[in-house]
Amino acid sequence: MKAVVHVTLRNGVLDPQGDAVRRSLGSLGFAEVENVRVGKMIELDLTGEDRAGAEVRVAQMCEKLLANTVIEKYTVEII
Amino acid sequence: MKAVVHVTLRNGVLDPQGDAVRRSLGSLGFAEVENVRVGKMIELDLTGEDRAGAEVRVAQMCEKLLANTVIEKYTVEII
Repeated sequence: MKAVVHVTLRNGVLDPQGDAVRRSLGSLGFAEVENVRVGKMIELDLTGEDRAGAEVRVAQMCEKLLANTVIEKYTVEII
Repeated sequence: MKAVVHVTLRNGVLDPQGDAVRRSLGSLGFAEVENVRVGKMIELDLTGEDRAGAEVRVAQMCEKLLANTVIEKYTVEII
């Protein structure tokens, strides 16, 4: 079983990495880019077949390690 | 218009960051995690309404800046 976690900065939290990417894209001629936010995608290979249980466990992983929930939010997708 | 780019390591490329996450999860009691791969998600806000054109342009951004295509692959989604 596979889980995909997306970790992104909460709205309102500054994203200096995204700003740097936006400026670099602008200087490369991609003037249509208005804003950039950079997040993480984490793919997990899991043993077991209990999809609902896995979703709960992966959410616990996010709370404990994968995301800093003060400034980041996350989504969990079991595939 | 919004574009979402996922940048992930190509199969076969070692992912030490993912390995570190897997070990940390294991020591936190999440023994069901067999493998972890860490990638980037980049959200772009774009001006204009030409979806097909935007997809081409964002692919160019990936080739030039957002991905290192020697070791990384990318997907572009216009939403």
